[in-house]
Amino acid sequence: MRSRRGDDWHMCRWLAYSGSPILLEELLYRPHHSLIDQSLHSRLGVETTNGDGFGIGWYEPSQSRQPALFRSIQPAWSDQNLRELAHSVASPLFLAHIRASTGTPVQQTNCHPFRFDRWMWLHNGAIRDFAALRRDLLLAVDPQLFPSIAGSTDSELMFFLALTFGLRDEPVRAVERMVGFVEAVGWENGVQFPIQMTVATTDGDRLWVFRYSSEGDSRSLHFSTAVSTLREMYPENEALQRVSDETRIVVSEPFGDLLGAWHTMPEASYGVVQKGADELGAFEPRRL
Amino acid sequence: MRSRRGDDWHMCRWLAYSGSPILLEELLYRPHHSLIDQSLHSRLGVETTNGDGFGIGWYEPSQSRQPALFRSIQPAWSDQNLRELAHSVASPLFLAHIRASTGTPVQQTNCHPFRFDRWMWLHNGAIRDFAALRRDLLLAVDPQLFPSIAGSTDSELMFFLALTFGLRDEPVRAVERMVGFVEAVGWENGVQFPIQMTVATTDGDRLWVFRYSSEGDSRSLHFSTAVSTLREMYPENEALQRVSDETRIVVSEPFGDLLGAWHTMPEASYGVVQKGADELGAFEPRRL
Amino acid sequence: MRSRRGDDWHMCRWLAYSGSPILLEELLYRPHHSLIDQSLHSRLGVETTNGDGFGIGWYEPSQSRQPALFRSIQPAWSDQNLRELAHSVASPLFLAHIRASTGTPVQQTNCHPFRFDRWMWLHNGAIRDFAALRRDLLLAVDPQLFPSIAGSTDSELMFFLALTFGLRDEPVRAVERMVGFVEAVGWENGVQFPIQMTVATTDGDRLWVFRYSSEGDSRSLHFSTAVSTLREMYPENEALQRVSDETRIVVSEPFGDLLGAWHTMPEASYGVVQKGADELGAFEPRRL
Amino acid sequence: MRSRRGDDWHMCRWLAYSGSPILLEELLYRPHHSLIDQSLHSRLGVETTNGDGFGIGWYEPSQSRQPALFRSIQPAWSDQNLRELAHSVASPLFLAHIRASTGTPVQQTNCHPFRFDRWMWLHNGAIRDFAALRRDLLLAVDPQLFPSIAGSTDSELMFFLALTFGLRDEPVRAVERMVGFVEAVGWENGVQFPIQMTVATTDGDRLWVFRYSSEGDSRSLHFSTAVSTLREMYPENEALQRVSDETRIVVSEPFGDLLGAWHTMPEASYGVVQKGADELGAFEPRRL
Repeated sequence: MRSRRGDDWHMCRWLAYSGSPILLEELLYRPHHSLIDQSLHSRLGVETTNGDGFGIGWYEPSQSRQPALFRSIQPAWSDQNLRELAHSVASPLFLAHIRASTGTPVQQTNCHPFRFDRWMWLHNGAIRDFAALRRDLLLAVDPQLFPSIAGSTDSELMFFLALTFGLRDEPVRAVERMVGFVEAVGWENGVQFPIQMTVATTDGDRLWVFRYSSEGDSRSLHFSTAVSTLREMYPENEALQRVSDETRIVVSEPFGDLLGAWHTMPEASYGVVQKGADELGAFEPRRL
Repeated sequence: MRSRRGDDWHMCRWLAYSGSPILLEELLYRPHHSLIDQSLHSRLGVETTNGDGFGIGWYEPSQSRQPALFRSIQPAWSDQNLRELAHSVASPLFLAHIRASTGTPVQQTNCHPFRFDRWMWLHNGAIRDFAALRRDLLLAVDPQLFPSIAGSTDSELMFFLALTFGLRDEPVRAVERMVGFVEAVGWENGVQFPIQMTVATTDGDRLWVFRYSSEGDSRSLHFSTAVSTLREMYPENEALQRVSDETRIVVSEPFGDLLGAWHTMPEASYGVVQKGADELGAFEPRRL
Repeated sequence: MRSRRGDDWHMCRWLAYSGSPILLEELLYRPHHSLIDQSLHSRLGVETTNGDGFGIGWYEPSQSRQPALFRSIQPAWSDQNLRELAHSVASPLFLAHIRASTGTPVQQTNCHPFRFDRWMWLHNGAIRDFAALRRDLLLAVDPQLFPSIAGSTDSELMFFLALTFGLRDEPVRAVERMVGFVEAVGWENGVQFPIQMTVATTDGDRLWVFRYSSEGDSRSLHFSTAVSTLREMYPENEALQRVSDETRIVVSEPFGDLLGAWHTMPEASYGVVQKGADELGAFEPRRL
Repeated sequence: MRSRRGDDWHMCRWLAYSGSPILLEELLYRPHHSLIDQSLHSRLGVETTNGDGFGIGWYEPSQSRQPALFRSIQPAWSDQNLRELAHSVASPLFLAHIRASTGTPVQQTNCHPFRFDRWMWLHNGAIRDFAALRRDLLLAVDPQLFPSIAGSTDSELMFFLALTFGLRDEPVRAVERMVGFVEAVGWENGVQFPIQMTVATTDGDRLWVFRYSSEGDSRSLHFSTAVSTLREMYPENEALQRVSDETRIVVSEPFGDLLGAWHTMPEASYGVVQKGADELGAFEPRRL
C-alpha cells in the first residue's frame, strides 16, 4: 500500500473575509505577519516560501454580479499590481490565496481562487498521488461542467467534483460527498491517506469553510472571535469600532497582535459565515 | 546631420476618458475596433501589433487619492486580469495605453501610464536617437525628482522633464518647455527631427492632451464630439442619454461606428478637458 | 449540424529543420521574413500576429538524450532569452513554433513543441468545437500516458492520441488513426469539419510532417528543395556549400529570397525526412 | 549621519565556476543544498527566500564569442526553462545568480549577471541609500558606456563604474577605484557604511572575485579547495577524478557534503582564478 506524506510540507496560505466593506490592503498588507508577509516566510508552516503564484477574488459591495479575479504567477510579495489593487479595491466578501505548488505547473489557470458563476473556491492541502488518481477523478465530473475546468490542479478538480455533487444546493453535504469520493478512489488505488485540506467556498452571500484530512491531522485553520466580544476585550481599539458585528475572518495562519482574536477550527469540522448566527459543525465524508 | 525616421512605424495606442463614471470595459473591449482590438491589429497605423505591454490608470469616483495603476508586459489582448479589472472598475477619469516598444526593454517599469503623486502621463511617439541623448536629458531632471524615475523610456523621461519645468503649475507651458529643451538637445547632437509625440496628462481633475512633432507630421489624435451635439444627431442612442454633457474621450485612433463622433486634433495643438468649456490651442515649443 | 470555421483565422507558424548542425538564429532571425519576423506579421496568414507564446525544441549533435525545450508565454519577437539561445545553440534537428491561441490559455504548458521521451510534436490548426469534444478525446488516451498530459490544448491531446495509437512504432499509420478517431468523435457530435492541421513530429532521428484537413482545404506547408538541386541553381551561394546534401527544412510559410527554394506539400499528404531518400505520400485518416 | 543597515538581510546568492567543461545542472541542481535549493531556503543567510529572479551566463567551450545569458524574473526553483538549459548546456566558465531584491524592481534588466562585450559581472550586497546616491554615481560613468546601462540596480552601476575606471586593463585596481569612489560619494551624502559586496567578474579567460564592505563585516564568500588536494583527501570520489586540476568554484554559500571542500575568503580580499597558480590578495579601496 502506497502512502505519500512527503508532499505535506507544501502548504498554501489563505484568507477569507466577510463583513463591512474593507480595503483589501487592510488585511493583505497592514497587519503584523500579514498574508503577503507570510508569502515570504511563515511561522507555523514547515516550508518557508509561498512563491508559486497567488490570487484574490472579490465581490463588489453593490452588485449581484460574479466576483472579480486577479491571479498571477509572480510571487505575491513583489507584485506591484497586487499592491495597487489592494490599495484600490474595497469589498464586503473576498478570498485571497498564496500558492506553494505540490507539483502541478505554476500557471495562472492553477492559481486560486477558482470561479464558477457566482461561486469561488480555494484550497490548502493536496490529494495524494494525484497524478495517478487524476483520470478517475476527472471522469466523475459532470460532462456539462467538464469544459469549465481550465487548469490542472487537484484543488480545482475538487471544486468541480463538489459542484457535480450538489455544491450549489447543499454545500456542506456536497463537499462531504466529494471527500468521500476522493477517499474511495484513493483507497481503491492503494493510497493510504488520500486527502488533506482546508477549503473556503462562497456564493457571494454565505461563506463555507472546511478542515479535514484522511489521517485526522489536518492543516491549521482559524476563525476570528466575534467582533462584539473583541470590542469588550479591547474597548479602546478604534478599528474594532468601525467594523460590523457580522464581520468574520477565516485564515490558514493567524496574523496581527491581538490576543484572543483567533479560535482554532476543530479537526474534521465545517463552518458557515452568514447573516445571523454563524454555524460550526462536524464534517463527515460520505460515500456515494 | 543624422536623421532617423525609421522608428516612426512603432506606434503605441492610447485612450483618455473624462466624464460620467463608466466601466472600463465599455471603452476598452466593447466598441467596434476598440483599443484592445487595436492591440492585435490597427487600421491607421503602419505596424500591425501592439504587444509589448500595456497599462491602465484610473481615479476613483469618490476619492481624492492618487490614481491606481495596472500595468503588465503581457499582450493586452490575452491578459485575463485586464479583462477582469475592466469588468469590475468604474472610473470618471482614466487613461489606457498599449505599447509597441521603440527599443527600450519590455518591462513593467516601461509601461504607461507613468505616475507621480496625483499626476499621470502617457505618450505615443519617440525621442529620436534617444540612446545618444538620454544622458543629457537625464541630467536636466530636478535631482529631487530623479529618484522617482523607475524605467528607461523616453516617454517617462519626458514626464519628469515636464515636471521639472513646472507641469504641476503651468501644464501647457511646462510641456512646451520640455519639447523646446528636447529639441535643443537633439539639434546640438545632430538629430534633425528630435521629437514625435501625442501625450495625455492629468492631475485627476483636468486632462491635457498634446499633438506635436518636430517635422510637423505628427501621429494622429482625435477627440470626441460634444455629447450634446451627438445627442441631437442620434436622439435614439441610449448610451448617449446616460453620459453627462461633460464627457469627453481622446484617442490615438478612432473606434466605434458613430459617424461624426470624432474630430482630428490639429497639427501642433493642445487641448484641455475640464469642467465648463474645454480648450483647444496652438502648441509652441519654448527654449529655456 | 454545427460547423465552426471562424477559428480558422488563428494560425500558428512553425519550422522544422534536419541537416548539418546549424545555429538556431540562422533560421529563426536571419532570413528575410524569418519565423520571428512572422511572429509580428505574416504574409500568407489571415491574422497578423502570433504573440501567444512560442517554443523551440532541439537535439544536440553528439548525444542520444531527449531533446531540450525552451518555451515561453512572451511574444517571440521581444524575448531576449530566445535571442540569446538562438545565438548560442547549434543543432542538427530542431523544431520551432510561434503560437496564436485558438482559445486555450496562454501558458507555458500550452506552448509547442510537446515532448514525450525522445519524441517531439507541434501543430498548426485546430480541432473544431474542441471544448465540446475534449472529454471524449481525453478518455481515449492510454491511461499510462494520461498523467504526462500537462496542458489543455487540442494540439497536445492529438500528440497523446497519436502515441496511444502507435506513434512510436508506425508513425504515419498512428497519425492517420488519430485523425480518423478525431473525425469520428467530431461527426458524432455534429461537427462538420472536425480537424485542420499541419503537424511535425520527430524521434530525433527522422522527421515526419503532415498536411490534412477534414474539409480538404488545409493550411499551407512547404518543404525545401534538395540541396543538390539548389547548389546547381545557385553555384555562387556560399551558404549552400556549407550544408549537407541531406539538409531539409519544412515550414508553414516560406521565408528568404531564394526563388525555387520551396515546394508546396500537397493537400492530404505526409512526408518523411530521413537518411537516404525522403518520402512523400498520401495521408488517409483511418477509422479504428 | 544616516546609517541604514536594515537592507543587509537582503542577500543574493551566487556561484562562479571555472574548470573542465561541466553540465550546469551538476552544480545548480545536483549537490545537496545546491544553489537552486538555496533559492527556496538558505542556511547561512538571514532571509529565507531568493525569489526575485535569477540569471546564468556562460562561455562556450570552443568559441571566443561573448557569453550567453539566460535571465528571468520567475523564481529559479520553479523555472522549467532553467532546468532544461542546465540539463543541456556544458561550459568551462559560468556564473549563476539568484536574486533577493533590495528595492529595485523585479525585471529582467535587473537580473545578474550583467554583460558588456566579453565581460560579465555579478554582485551580492548593496550600495546603501542607493536611491539618494544614484544620480551622482550615474554621472561618473563614461558617457560612451552610459547607453549600455539597461537596468536600475546598484549592482549594474557598480559594473559600469568599474569599467569606467579601467576594469578591462587593471581589474583589481579598477574595482578598488570603484569602491573608493562609491564610499566617497556615500560619505559626502552622510551614509556611514556605503558599500557591502561580494562580486565576481570575468572576461571569459580569468575570473576575479571580491569580498569587501565599508563596515568590515562582509557577506560570506567561499572558494573550493584545490582539486589535487581533494583527490588526496577522497581518493575514492569519482567526480573528482573527472575534473581538471585547475577547476575552481567560488560561492556565496557552501554546498554539498564534502568536508574540507571549502575555504572562506578573508575579509577585504580578492582572488584571481586563472591558468597556473591562482591569486589571493588584500583589497584596498582607492580614492581617485
